Amino acid sequence: MKNILGREVPDNIKGYGEVKHYGGYLASKGTKTKRSIKLTNVLPGDEKLHDNLDVVLDKLPLKDGMVVSFHHHLRNGDFVLNMVMEKIAARGYKDITIAASSIFPCHGELVELIEKKVVTSIYAAYISGPVADAISAGKLENPAVMHTHGGRARIMESGDLSIDIAFIAAPTSDDYGNINGVDGKSACGALGYAYTDAETADITVAITDNLVEYPNTTIDIPQTLIDYVVVVDAIGDPNGIVSGTTQITKNPIGLKIANMTTELIKNSGYFKDGMSFQTGAGGVSLAVAADMKAEMIENNIKGSFASGGITGYIVDMYKEGLFKSLFDVQCFDLAAIKSAKENPGHMTMSASMYANADNKGSVVNKLDVVILGATEIDTDFNVNVTTTSDGTIMGGSGGHADTSAGAKLAIIVTQLANSRISAIKDRVTALTTPGETVDVIVTERGIAINPKRTELIERLKETNLPIMTIEQLKDIAEGMTGKPKEVEFTDEIVAVIEYRDGTVLDVVRKAK
Amino acid sequence: MKNILGREVPDNIKGYGEVKHYGGYLASKGTKTKRSIKLTNVLPGDEKLHDNLDVVLDKLPLKDGMVVSFHHHLRNGDFVLNMVMEKIAARGYKDITIAASSIFPCHGELVELIEKKVVTSIYAAYISGPVADAISAGKLENPAVMHTHGGRARIMESGDLSIDIAFIAAPTSDDYGNINGVDGKSACGALGYAYTDAETADITVAITDNLVEYPNTTIDIPQTLIDYVVVVDAIGDPNGIVSGTTQITKNPIGLKIANMTTELIKNSGYFKDGMSFQTGAGGVSLAVAADMKAEMIENNIKGSFASGGITGYIVDMYKEGLFKSLFDVQCFDLAAIKSAKENPGHMTMSASMYANADNKGSVVNKLDVVILGATEIDTDFNVNVTTTSDGTIMGGSGGHADTSAGAKLAIIVTQLANSRISAIKDRVTALTTPGETVDVIVTERGIAINPKRTELIERLKETNLPIMTIEQLKDIAEGMTGKPKEVEFTDEIVAVIEYRDGTVLDVVRKAK
Repeated sequence: MKNILGREVPDNIKGYGEVKHYGGYLASKGTKTKRSIKLTNVLPGDEKLHDNLDVVLDKLPLKDGMVVSFHHHLRNGDFVLNMVMEKIAARGYKDITIAASSIFPCHGELVELIEKKVVTSIYAAYISGPVADAISAGKLENPAVMHTHGGRARIMESGDLSIDIAFIAAPTSDDYGNINGVDGKSACGALGYAYTDAETADITVAITDNLVEYPNTTIDIPQTLIDYVVVVDAIGDPNGIVSGTTQITKNPIGLKIANMTTELIKNSGYFKDGMSFQTGAGGVSLAVAADMKAEMIENNIKGSFASGGITGYIVDMYKEGLFKSLFDVQCFDLAAIKSAKENPGHMTMSASMYANADNKGSVVNKLDVVILGATEIDTDFNVNVTTTSDGTIMGGSGGHADTSAGAKLAIIVTQLANSRISAIKDRVTALTTPGETVDVIVTERGIAINPKRTELIERLKETNLPIMTIEQLKDIAEGMTGKPKEVEFTDEIVAVIEYRDGTVLDVVRKAK
Repeated sequence: MKNILGREVPDNIKGYGEVKHYGGYLASKGTKTKRSIKLTNVLPGDEKLHDNLDVVLDKLPLKDGMVVSFHHHLRNGDFVLNMVMEKIAARGYKDITIAASSIFPCHGELVELIEKKVVTSIYAAYISGPVADAISAGKLENPAVMHTHGGRARIMESGDLSIDIAFIAAPTSDDYGNINGVDGKSACGALGYAYTDAETADITVAITDNLVEYPNTTIDIPQTLIDYVVVVDAIGDPNGIVSGTTQITKNPIGLKIANMTTELIKNSGYFKDGMSFQTGAGGVSLAVAADMKAEMIENNIKGSFASGGITGYIVDMYKEGLFKSLFDVQCFDLAAIKSAKENPGHMTMSASMYANADNKGSVVNKLDVVILGATEIDTDFNVNVTTTSDGTIMGGSGGHADTSAGAKLAIIVTQLANSRISAIKDRVTALTTPGETVDVIVTERGIAINPKRTELIERLKETNLPIMTIEQLKDIAEGMTGKPKEVEFTDEIVAVIEYRDGTVLDVVRKAK
């Protein structure tokens, strides 16, 4: 019953079905199918625009057991998921599957719908807040399916989950459904996750609070993919949609880790003209970006692209000419939104183009270096970003496992010990990213390199970096925190962690 | 055996199959299906780039009876169709179906392959030159299928014809298949027709003569849709790809027609802020654009968009602020290519977005006014742009029937009589565009308005325009040319003219 990663995953999971077991990060090579889409054509004279969500809902083939999708570009400021689900619940439908690219604390209203069995299944790449707590407590009828950002595109394109209706929060739209995310009071920037919903759902509803005259002059999602446009007062709270500015960590430990990471990259063999790079919006990730910027300028290195969620720090690097272009799936701050609108080399991409393992080649495949975080890492380099150490869901892969698989150098940055909890475990509580795709762990006390990466180990021997084995790192951590207490779990599976190829990496069980 | 347009169309056509008869321009409303696509996924480490077409052909599942597609953005300068078909023929394959968005005189080499039964079926929106002559002479095994630009997108998306392999001439590509048409020595501008090939074929091969470093910084077709990239010396002859500049007619009759057309538009009720407009690259069409420009400036009219194939004249109108944006499916001249690269409001669109009747709404649906040509018009306002009056194929719909269906005011401009041939007939030799979608015929001797458009007839009564019935126009023409001689035809069907919805409008029979 243990899979090749040593995780206890049954062959069949109640409420999920038959399990395809993980077979290695490149095992999915082969023939794939994009599902057929059913649609109603829109002819001359047909109208799509409505000023009332209820009127549109009246026209939709709502039914018990349907699958509806939402995107998370409005992040913790999103109004649309709650707005739609309240109305669906009020109409008495049950047994709904929600495929949301991510779920945030602002979606807490869902908990009541979960308890009432209005919502019985959830697919998401990231879940935090009350919904995560409810799932962890076993309140959701079926196990939540926690996929990657690329995995979501794969699931939707393949029809592993066919979306009946996609509700698309649209910061700007015209009356025919030409949508962008860069204009309007609820501007969020790139709409990479939403694009895949629009492309793969049978029926699509754009919900906007900024209707512009036809044609919208910046089009991220075209009219050919949208059935209905409905205007509402507000699709989100600007304060929750983006941080005004994202911030470099001020924590000296974080800065030290960033510094060591940059030193490592400089000596990795990948620090050269044409390098590609991705880092997140966390404080340490941004500190790496700042360090990298200085080093690239000093060494006159011109990179090819930076990708992923884009921040103002990355935009600055682009403006300095350190990257020829940006591949942007979502904007994290106002500077990124502005740049996505203004800079031609700041290109938006769909979730599928970003990270889908089952298309003809995603951007992550072309990544040299990615910087990622972790809550836990085990001695096989497996990473957990899905749960806390006590097994409560508080995140998910997002693009973690996708970029780690694609990048030539996947670096995990993490504080070795924090609040008396060690980041290095014998066994991660939940497995989000397989160790075979993780190359390096950088902590403030030392750096561990995946033993598979012998050439990298050779290269870094010449440096002053504190290279050690992961077991040594673990010992240092446990010297600080003591041996971590084992959390006990029940047999009840509350979430299934799917790898980007649709195989199952691990399951999350309800804690005792 | 006569369809509702009075054309003799059998229920079943040898080499074509069962006929769906035309039922009216809006009769296709309903549930549609986008076909499922089979593909091989591209994973980290996989390569797509090759420097030799034969090496790529070795990897492809070539077979007798396969369907291969090509686009016509390189127009009469295209090298790719011949280059690929020569090699396929040399490998001994037979019974190939070619789905080319259009076929030009430069593709004359195909005639030999048609004679040798290497190529037995052809789908195209426009065919001129030796291939058209060969089809007209009955040399092609099966009747050619002559669809519209939008119809081609529909056929390929629905799988009415499933493309096995798309060969995509790519003016610029990186090693992963991010393609644009605006850079490189073979730049052609927008790649609207090619986009649909890339999206709908199982296997896609980008053939480029301008390989750039990853990532290409202008992407019209993304890497996710491309299987192979192959570099060749030249994909086309720049002299044939675009006219240096397109030219307004100098013929005084043409100028008079343009003048009357503009006067008509001014009084049509559509000449107002927010108007949308399309016209072609012919000399009279351009003269209308020039007149419209002057009138829009004088009357301070700000339009919404111009669409279709774009010329420098339309770009000038955009730059003057007369149109907020351009929807470009192909560029006709160098000024348009330059603008497509530089102006954010100059947006490219796929063939499907342009004109497909079976998606969620194409741009033609939003057109107010379109200016179109004709070789023949009959007294039911049906238009022929497919054959000459003696029945030889010399063109095809392109976007003619699509825009005519979509636009609120579809105007046909034509010289009433030319070389002793009248443009107005009792019966067109071939029917390309149904009269119910044609609103006005403008000739140098008079204007005929479709009797269905009573409100337009009322409106134009107030003007000095020479409005008359189409029968009166026909009488004038025949007074000049004499009654046209009836051409006699055999029973042999050499081409099937499909409407944009896949029904059959008419067939072309071999002349006696």
